[in-house]
Amino acid sequence: MAEKKIPYKIYLEENEMPKAWYNVRADMKTKPAPLLNPGTHEPMGAADLAPVFCEELIAQELNNDDPFIPIPQEIADFYKMYRPSPLVRAYCLEEKLQTPAKIYYKFEGNNTSGSHKLNSAIAQAYYAKKQGLKGVTTETGAGQWGTALSMACSYFGLDCKVFMVKVSYEQKPFRREVMRTYGASVTPSPSMETAVGRKILEEFPGTTGSLGCAISEAVEVATSTEGYRYVLGSVLNQVLLHQSVIGLETKAALDKYGIKPDMIIGCAGGGSNLGGLIAPFMGEKLRGEADYRIIAVEPQSCPSFTRGKYAYDFCDTGMVCPLAKMYTLGSGFIPAPNHAGGLRYHGMSPVLSQLYDDGYMEAVAVPQTAVFEAAEQFARVEGILPAPESSHAIKVAIDEAMKCKETGEEKTIVFGLTGTGYFDMTAYEKFHDGKMDDYIPTDEELQTYFDKLPKVD
Amino acid sequence: MAEKKIPYKIYLEENEMPKAWYNVRADMKTKPAPLLNPGTHEPMGAADLAPVFCEELIAQELNNDDPFIPIPQEIADFYKMYRPSPLVRAYCLEEKLQTPAKIYYKFEGNNTSGSHKLNSAIAQAYYAKKQGLKGVTTETGAGQWGTALSMACSYFGLDCKVFMVKVSYEQKPFRREVMRTYGASVTPSPSMETAVGRKILEEFPGTTGSLGCAISEAVEVATSTEGYRYVLGSVLNQVLLHQSVIGLETKAALDKYGIKPDMIIGCAGGGSNLGGLIAPFMGEKLRGEADYRIIAVEPQSCPSFTRGKYAYDFCDTGMVCPLAKMYTLGSGFIPAPNHAGGLRYHGMSPVLSQLYDDGYMEAVAVPQTAVFEAAEQFARVEGILPAPESSHAIKVAIDEAMKCKETGEEKTIVFGLTGTGYFDMTAYEKFHDGKMDDYIPTDEELQTYFDKLPKVD
Repeated sequence: MAEKKIPYKIYLEENEMPKAWYNVRADMKTKPAPLLNPGTHEPMGAADLAPVFCEELIAQELNNDDPFIPIPQEIADFYKMYRPSPLVRAYCLEEKLQTPAKIYYKFEGNNTSGSHKLNSAIAQAYYAKKQGLKGVTTETGAGQWGTALSMACSYFGLDCKVFMVKVSYEQKPFRREVMRTYGASVTPSPSMETAVGRKILEEFPGTTGSLGCAISEAVEVATSTEGYRYVLGSVLNQVLLHQSVIGLETKAALDKYGIKPDMIIGCAGGGSNLGGLIAPFMGEKLRGEADYRIIAVEPQSCPSFTRGKYAYDFCDTGMVCPLAKMYTLGSGFIPAPNHAGGLRYHGMSPVLSQLYDDGYMEAVAVPQTAVFEAAEQFARVEGILPAPESSHAIKVAIDEAMKCKETGEEKTIVFGLTGTGYFDMTAYEKFHDGKMDDYIPTDEELQTYFDKLPKVD
Repeated sequence: MAEKKIPYKIYLEENEMPKAWYNVRADMKTKPAPLLNPGTHEPMGAADLAPVFCEELIAQELNNDDPFIPIPQEIADFYKMYRPSPLVRAYCLEEKLQTPAKIYYKFEGNNTSGSHKLNSAIAQAYYAKKQGLKGVTTETGAGQWGTALSMACSYFGLDCKVFMVKVSYEQKPFRREVMRTYGASVTPSPSMETAVGRKILEEFPGTTGSLGCAISEAVEVATSTEGYRYVLGSVLNQVLLHQSVIGLETKAALDKYGIKPDMIIGCAGGGSNLGGLIAPFMGEKLRGEADYRIIAVEPQSCPSFTRGKYAYDFCDTGMVCPLAKMYTLGSGFIPAPNHAGGLRYHGMSPVLSQLYDDGYMEAVAVPQTAVFEAAEQFARVEGILPAPESSHAIKVAIDEAMKCKETGEEKTIVFGLTGTGYFDMTAYEKFHDGKMDDYIPTDEELQTYFDKLPKVD
């Protein structure tokens, strides 16, 4: 531990916290493709999206121009309740690995939602409240987003209706209970409460659900209930915008100590954490001011970047949502039930998809058991029990640190530790009991979903 | 929110962290009574305690003289991994309550053990390792101490054998899984693995266990296994010593902003958190340098301060441990199974017992459902889902803040938020479903246990 001057945890002062979100699209030469009407395949404008989304969030969704969007004071105040999150120097992990690499992680787990999801939840609840809405609907998979939204809605006094993917609802009863503590109603999806849910249940009785179908249900309820809108915790441009607070804080903390990372690593499901973490670094890269390796890590069981198609696709199973151009496994794809934790969405953020397609970032897919091995190794030396999602980034950060050990290079690695695994102990139990395996979808299986991609000219 | 200069969270810099623990006994005019041999009733010295406890910890246990004991560098380094913990200004709670009171809480939940227990666990594991031991045994109730000790043992490469009170083992399977992640073995208590466990099971078949009997089992295994010692997460003087890091940090953070609290509130089971939180403030009070109201909060279902006897008693059900003079409900007392969370020990720290008896602190007992109401109210505005234990302090902090609202007094309230409730969702579920009640032991019931107190001259 030579560099004693760098503390174990770098905290920003309140007055050093970001005052505006960074919108990476403003610096992208090729903008992400527009959302299309699922019927007409015409680009959707603000008026088309208004029945589904909140007005101000639509403006943010469509904003390809402004690099900075001020954070309203009410949101900034809420951020102060649980932010800044620490940027941690992983001294103990470095010592354990005996690597010359310098490892940092931005830890977003120190709030009751247990993850970074709260950063966008509070913004979305704020804009919904400002619009005078009664409530919002959403879907949740692993439950982190649903918990975060419940907290945010409780804070602003909004109703919150969550459709929770059935397999998670059953595996994570305590998540449901946390949401209840914050006054939300939680329904396992698919449900009999919606037309689309009933249709899916008829077609696939006994299905354990998917994010795609929970989205369809949440959208149906939002659009058919007076004073409600639908909100989403990942994929959308607005979500990445709000999550840029992660990257902005990370960069400010690094800058304080004159640290320039060589690579930035984040797990990727729909892309909310990764997009937020890398935002200001990607901005520098796009503007030609600096270069960084940027690495997305996804599960081999749900490999949208590494094995998906870059194409227009439905965001949901019920095909009621706009079409988005993204890396996708097809809207019918559902990861095998043995897949633990989140990162189970069939598509990837359109912003990240475009950046990946343009060669600004890399992607790697990792097997589940190796992820849990890395998680346990990390927990034992760094004292934080990581979420399975976050552990994907840990796995690759450790791999890169071990490469440094071979080459002797003192690279600086920054990764996103998105959350804690307290509600994922069923998955850890499976891992400890040797009951976890590494499911990888076959090419033939994926092809059946690719064949059903919508035909868009 | 007038006082903008005080941030939502006060963090100390690494170089402002305490370099020594504070031993309140050095400033006590009446020292806590010595531990007695359970057979002879003679005071026990270091040699008598050596078969049970680690050498250096015995020295700390018996040290009534040194006000400061330096924190070894290895422990200080580990502390830096998850400390300093934030001192949070509860602006949102104040606003919700519309109280002129200024409320601060020291939040100890930002580590995987989910509580303050890690502060002493890492110290005890360090001294066990330094002594060349192979492993340690312990008991755990709610599971926070067991988790903390597992983490600490994993860090120093020690075996860790945990006897977990059966009712908690069954209600909190995920706690067990976290301990397994850190490599500990966990046995539900009472068990058939020990003579004392078999005896208790024979006498009380179907018992849901108690801390007292888990202690007996852990001590039996430690004293009958080569290279093992017993460690304990509360009650003992050494534990309060290590936990003084909480109070020292709290005081340093307050001093930084020139804040002088009017009252300090902590939950009390065995006294580890309360004793740690109040240590430096109590020191000032004992030395006549300052005055504070110091309030212990305990459950009405396990009211050792408010309804117990100040007498010598067994620390364990099996009566194999030394006798300690403390406020006690009798070593046979077990709180009703409907009692949620921790704070279920029959006795109270001898240090705190003496201070309470000498009039240096107050105690109040609160009913369970009111505690959960306060917990939920707190969670909704402060964004942290508190442990049931911690919520006892929240309940009284809110009560005091509401008194200020009536009188218009701008009192400064500091309370200890010892941990998070992520593993207590079963209890929250009971509360939400209206299945929780407020059990209060009768005088007659308590008398049956008082009648069995050992006769010590």
